[in-house]
Amino acid sequence: MSGTGQPRARRRGARARGAEAPAREVNYRALRNPFPVMKAFSDDRIEAIHEAALSVLEDDGIMVLLPEARAIYRAAGAQVDEGTQIVRIGREIVAAALATAPASINLRGAVPERDVLLELGRLVFQPGGGAPHATDLARGRRPGLGRDFRELVQISQHFDAFQMISSLVEPQDIEPHLRHYFTIEAKLTLSDKAPFVYARGTPQALDSFEMLRDFRGLSDDAFRAEPWSYTIINTNSPRALDIPMAQGLIDFARHGQLCIVTPFTLMGAMAPITVAGAMVLSHAEALAAITLTQLSRPGAPVLYGTFTSNVDMKSGSPAFGTPEQFTASLAAGQLARHIGLPFRNASGSAANIADAQAANENQFALWGNLLSGTTVIIHAAGWLEGGLSLSYEKLITDMEVLQMVAELCTATSANDADLARDAIAEIGAGGHFFGCDHTMARYQTQFYTPLVADWSNYGRWQDQGGVTASERATGVWQGIVAADKRPATDPARVEALHEFIARRTAEGGAAPES
Amino acid sequence: MSGTGQPRARRRGARARGAEAPAREVNYRALRNPFPVMKAFSDDRIEAIHEAALSVLEDDGIMVLLPEARAIYRAAGAQVDEGTQIVRIGREIVAAALATAPASINLRGAVPERDVLLELGRLVFQPGGGAPHATDLARGRRPGLGRDFRELVQISQHFDAFQMISSLVEPQDIEPHLRHYFTIEAKLTLSDKAPFVYARGTPQALDSFEMLRDFRGLSDDAFRAEPWSYTIINTNSPRALDIPMAQGLIDFARHGQLCIVTPFTLMGAMAPITVAGAMVLSHAEALAAITLTQLSRPGAPVLYGTFTSNVDMKSGSPAFGTPEQFTASLAAGQLARHIGLPFRNASGSAANIADAQAANENQFALWGNLLSGTTVIIHAAGWLEGGLSLSYEKLITDMEVLQMVAELCTATSANDADLARDAIAEIGAGGHFFGCDHTMARYQTQFYTPLVADWSNYGRWQDQGGVTASERATGVWQGIVAADKRPATDPARVEALHEFIARRTAEGGAAPES
Repeated sequence: MSGTGQPRARRRGARARGAEAPAREVNYRALRNPFPVMKAFSDDRIEAIHEAALSVLEDDGIMVLLPEARAIYRAAGAQVDEGTQIVRIGREIVAAALATAPASINLRGAVPERDVLLELGRLVFQPGGGAPHATDLARGRRPGLGRDFRELVQISQHFDAFQMISSLVEPQDIEPHLRHYFTIEAKLTLSDKAPFVYARGTPQALDSFEMLRDFRGLSDDAFRAEPWSYTIINTNSPRALDIPMAQGLIDFARHGQLCIVTPFTLMGAMAPITVAGAMVLSHAEALAAITLTQLSRPGAPVLYGTFTSNVDMKSGSPAFGTPEQFTASLAAGQLARHIGLPFRNASGSAANIADAQAANENQFALWGNLLSGTTVIIHAAGWLEGGLSLSYEKLITDMEVLQMVAELCTATSANDADLARDAIAEIGAGGHFFGCDHTMARYQTQFYTPLVADWSNYGRWQDQGGVTASERATGVWQGIVAADKRPATDPARVEALHEFIARRTAEGGAAPES
Repeated sequence: MSGTGQPRARRRGARARGAEAPAREVNYRALRNPFPVMKAFSDDRIEAIHEAALSVLEDDGIMVLLPEARAIYRAAGAQVDEGTQIVRIGREIVAAALATAPASINLRGAVPERDVLLELGRLVFQPGGGAPHATDLARGRRPGLGRDFRELVQISQHFDAFQMISSLVEPQDIEPHLRHYFTIEAKLTLSDKAPFVYARGTPQALDSFEMLRDFRGLSDDAFRAEPWSYTIINTNSPRALDIPMAQGLIDFARHGQLCIVTPFTLMGAMAPITVAGAMVLSHAEALAAITLTQLSRPGAPVLYGTFTSNVDMKSGSPAFGTPEQFTASLAAGQLARHIGLPFRNASGSAANIADAQAANENQFALWGNLLSGTTVIIHAAGWLEGGLSLSYEKLITDMEVLQMVAELCTATSANDADLARDAIAEIGAGGHFFGCDHTMARYQTQFYTPLVADWSNYGRWQDQGGVTASERATGVWQGIVAADKRPATDPARVEALHEFIARRTAEGGAAPES
């Protein structure tokens, strides 16, 4: 068998391709985190952080700008100072909230295959979100447009390893009082995954819920019985909860929709400079927000979250993908397990273009997330400038990493046949395994097929234009956009959705709360 | 304290810089791997792989091209077929070798601070090695030159996180029979770290040992008593050991110098297509080579190693940083712990330039190494084209990742003061922590300072030229080369070294064995 050279392997490969060997199939939809959990701190220091956070809520309190939210806290026994708007929350109130917050949440997609189970041990990826700018190599960096938003929904929909689609870019050419119609319409008609809905005040939230409920063909009760959408709630660190965020916590909880609570705490700026100190603050704020969801509706779906990185102490610039963010991720994961809730975390990069820094920061932060037992990793792909822009090409090159991680979520077989004992005996010293039966039976299914990586040798790569991975990524996303593959939708519901939007637009839309 | 804005923090920062706050100090020289170990296979399947490897050595054997090596195996009881050159090694011979191979090795540098302890649980990085080409953004891609070799030694010496320096590039403008004088001279005079020595036949090895022994001022006995240098031994997969590699195993072992044994097994090409099958082959070859070191000198320093990745089954091109390489790393780590030896592994990238693919592949492979409990990670920085070129810029951008990993090797403090309970109470809701005492006492030491990452905002980054991380990396390595910082050396020994080289050159040098 040995010594026949590579061409023979190719010939046999070509013959086999059409005939015997099965094609590779992957399932990136329902992933379990296969990585061992790493700890930042000892269990007793995690307990100390938890206790310190409880004391922050009890003794120092949190400023809550929304009167209705203060009333809800007060009714539960919290001490409310209406002058300073400071709410002091006793630990028994927090404990009761944690007792009713669900440990397992099934976020519903348009079809059951798009449902996403959110609990500790699961692994879910989202593309970068919340970016005011979009950027790509074909059209440059610009304020996010409606066109960009729709394209990015299509691209996000295309990849199964994005089990949830984020807020992506802000479509700044769409007027703020109509923007939620535009974004929800795009997500419902271009994607079958559960949509993100912004918490920008009750009128927009109720509009969004109505569109979603009717598009899914649900009764009001059926809609409220399960989460069909989700929002992100950022506290205003340190120790404040503003009006739209508090309204969001209440509205989403009451409608049974998912709140992902995420203090965004930059160490040395809006949070203490130490990981442990930032965790005390972040944990306190998260507990306050989680408590508000459970007071609004016990059992409401909510995720514990963190997004803690550091700033450059010379300039105040935020940094991402740093050792400090990594350690904070690990600590936050320990706190999530301490309170027993599914856990959202974030990757990211501070780089200004999709270069080696951007790739390295994003992947470094990703590994901090993976080793912290994160359930949902937000901003897992495409983020540049600390989230001020979303890069189409980086979305693709980062997706390559996410798909490789997804591959590791399936155990590799090592049964007796996999040991290849016969093939090793068969192939002589100095031979090769290209054409042997053991290889031929597996060559179409054994290896991950890259999305954008080019493994050509230097000469061939040069002949093909000598382009970078990012330049190849342009072709990848352009191909997805051009294909314009859409999920099945009911034309009657699409028409009804458009009628609703036309009517609400004529009525003046709904201005965002700020 | 709150509401004074960032400028105030800057002013206080500027005042404090010269006065009170201590500067940040790091020690990247002696690292312990802080990451939890991940398994690819169950313990009983690892045992099955080990057993299968032993049966390969017993039943199928390994082709050994060097007569002296066959004689050594035969003397130990192995069955040798001189016609086919196949050596069949009984498991009791392997077991005896594993019993004498040391679990802990102290590789000596020029000074004790450069000694490197090699045992399971430690973490050591090496730059990419063995590259025929060098490439940088200032001078392009070219066959490796003597100038490149010297510059790359300087750059490798500069970073403490390279605790060992690899073979770097092949200086192709230096004649092969004189090349070992050139490379050893550069490593001894430009670096105080333990040098790599090529195993290219006994004459070159003995020349190299003599230069090193005398430059370190050692007696012959003192030199042989401890490893002052190391080599890499690649088997010729499948199942062959060529003349220079077998000579290297014998020569280095007899002189007490370190052999790092590394089958380079590409799944689907020179090894079975399955991870488990490739591991059987790789493990068998590694055990055969380790056995030869212990038969040559019981207790000789040797590292168990692996470098198993896959090929593109369409083209036969090697791939690196793949999920399959990651899984093979985990399995190899399990096998290393199974036999109780320190463990060498490798990162790498198949990309042709230092782009996002190159960064992502290298870091992905790195995490496979870190989670497999690797002791020495070779090709941890700079490798492109699957090792056919070494990129100066990628060396720098990858070093950023290695330094961030090194940061994680030191535990983060979470004592009561770190919890920042007082600072959180002091800073009002919506304020910031820039100027508070808790921050001021720590701001110079708390965070990792980046090597090449730029955290400026987009406008400032554009004003400064809008360059990529790789372009900034050019300035970093040029600065290191221009500074030309050299370790302390004894002028008399430098002179003696140069005299030795002049004499041996006049005598005709030493041709490499092939």
